[in-house]
Amino acid sequence: MTENTMHVDKIERIFDASGAEALFITDPHNMRYISGFRGEAGMLYISRKTKVLITDGRFLEAAKRESGFTVIEEKHSHKRKKILRECLTADKASIVGYEDKYMRCNEFSKLQNSLPEVSQWLPLDDQIDEIRKVKTEYELELLEKAAAIDDKAFEEFLGEVRAGMTELEACAFLEYRLKMNGAEALAFDTIVSSGKNTSMPNARPTSKKIEEGDFLMVDFGCVYQGYRSDMCRTIVIGKASEEQKKIYRIVREAQQNVFDNLRAGMTGRDGDELARSVIRAEGYDRYCSHATGHGVGLYIHEEPMLSPVDATVLEVNTVETVEPGIYIPDFGGARIEDMIVVTSDGIRLLTHAARELIEL
Amino acid sequence: MTENTMHVDKIERIFDASGAEALFITDPHNMRYISGFRGEAGMLYISRKTKVLITDGRFLEAAKRESGFTVIEEKHSHKRKKILRECLTADKASIVGYEDKYMRCNEFSKLQNSLPEVSQWLPLDDQIDEIRKVKTEYELELLEKAAAIDDKAFEEFLGEVRAGMTELEACAFLEYRLKMNGAEALAFDTIVSSGKNTSMPNARPTSKKIEEGDFLMVDFGCVYQGYRSDMCRTIVIGKASEEQKKIYRIVREAQQNVFDNLRAGMTGRDGDELARSVIRAEGYDRYCSHATGHGVGLYIHEEPMLSPVDATVLEVNTVETVEPGIYIPDFGGARIEDMIVVTSDGIRLLTHAARELIEL
Repeated sequence: MTENTMHVDKIERIFDASGAEALFITDPHNMRYISGFRGEAGMLYISRKTKVLITDGRFLEAAKRESGFTVIEEKHSHKRKKILRECLTADKASIVGYEDKYMRCNEFSKLQNSLPEVSQWLPLDDQIDEIRKVKTEYELELLEKAAAIDDKAFEEFLGEVRAGMTELEACAFLEYRLKMNGAEALAFDTIVSSGKNTSMPNARPTSKKIEEGDFLMVDFGCVYQGYRSDMCRTIVIGKASEEQKKIYRIVREAQQNVFDNLRAGMTGRDGDELARSVIRAEGYDRYCSHATGHGVGLYIHEEPMLSPVDATVLEVNTVETVEPGIYIPDFGGARIEDMIVVTSDGIRLLTHAARELIEL
Repeated sequence: MTENTMHVDKIERIFDASGAEALFITDPHNMRYISGFRGEAGMLYISRKTKVLITDGRFLEAAKRESGFTVIEEKHSHKRKKILRECLTADKASIVGYEDKYMRCNEFSKLQNSLPEVSQWLPLDDQIDEIRKVKTEYELELLEKAAAIDDKAFEEFLGEVRAGMTELEACAFLEYRLKMNGAEALAFDTIVSSGKNTSMPNARPTSKKIEEGDFLMVDFGCVYQGYRSDMCRTIVIGKASEEQKKIYRIVREAQQNVFDNLRAGMTGRDGDELARSVIRAEGYDRYCSHATGHGVGLYIHEEPMLSPVDATVLEVNTVETVEPGIYIPDFGGARIEDMIVVTSDGIRLLTHAARELIEL
């Protein structure tokens, strides 16, 4: 799998752009993306000529099997700072790039104090996120598998959910089906909200009972081989009112306008506007409080966003969510969310559950 | 609830000890502990005379209801840095304590750049963790409730688990029952491992089928009103071998020795040694790789540890896990974990599931 899961070749551009002579990578997802190593403990030392993975005895075998890096064991007699010092000396490197976006202040202080020979610490800011943006075919396969687990679990959920269950019970069942269909973990805290609670875009499930006539919103995702899915459906328990039908129709049309018109070369802002313009034309834009979408991959939120303030140009094989929503205080809200791959002439859907309004 | 969930009085000792004139608290758990506020977004500004909670429109109502703090709304026309500047000026404060243990490097840089009038930034290190160490009666009630959910879910799990299920399926069922019994979330990634996989203390569940004769280890916990539980049981599927019985007996005796002899006034190291000495006397100490226990509360891992390197004196109403284990490569392992409250003359158990070896 190493050739599929290791992306160390993409690191070269960081050396070109930043002036760093060596990079320290400690965030587990970044470590996995760059080296292929899936373990939780360890770090990468990378220079133009050296690729070292430092980990402890527990992960040594996995590190050798999963990564294409030189694996060095850290232990009491050969501590991490000593290994790093040896690498820096061998490379004659003293300008080090570090993950300021992921590292805690006290971890960084310890690192600085333990390596006084480093002449300059360069914060990498978004540079690692940047290289993760465009997905490979192999990454797309994993994302598609994660999305398929969502579709399957949602179908089973529809067969079980009914008035009288609490939001928490409905949530527990949905998560159970995600796991039974092969999810290794949940991608984020599942949202299950009903009735007026659906007016809060990020409601946490409560002990409120789901009632006849309620909007029921479920926003959920899973992890498959490290990659995350994210989808949302809003249904009506029982018969939908005219107002519910109208809100749902507008959200659905906003989403479809993105599906029909988004393509590589447009910006995140353009993508957002494709949805927002439909909602605005109906006079509901003040009930539409969040961005239309976000990138997704090893992290649930990645660059770029489909947002009014994101001017990033979307490249082929960027994966985004498309999730317009309308939220009316004291009434309720609807959101429909799918995952897409941006292609040169349009988009390809990764999630496939029905998008017409379901009255259950 | 405010009087029960707000612990701002405990902050005074940090002003006394650190020399800080104001504290910035941004970690959600610390924010909740100190102010009672359960929202995800916002921060606290605290001086000896001022207690301010800054949050945005989404959380304003909840902030006012849940916290005893002065709530100030951050918005485009009144940004966080402006609010902080006004607080610092009103208090004539320029020495600020910050959570270096929780804050990311880039968040801290932004904060520093936005408030040049701060003359000194003091890393708080473990000082907030320190004040969370001893639990109040109300916190103990919540921890006991979380532990009771574990007991109940485990009982239901025993009625369902059998040879032929995969570790992942068994895990999915256990988590489902935790949620159906009132867990608002999982306390950490559940461990379900079987057969040889049990030799890895922190194994992730796999698609391996559980087989007759396997050790089956489940280590799990839930969140109840923010507070976390943590327990582990090891059972045998079918009939236990003599070696399995022996390992289990030693682990059980090690745990019981802690239950029988630990009390306030002893150190974390003493607590660890109560378990480790039993395992050592049987010649299994080289198969015993982790600390005997850790504190638990709003975080799953809190201070102090029951560990050979923790010299902290255990105070009354500290909550700890007691979880000795023996792990034999290529054979398997056993761990038994319960949660206890340290009392003046002993301990009180929070988890109650049976501890004798179950052959299922």
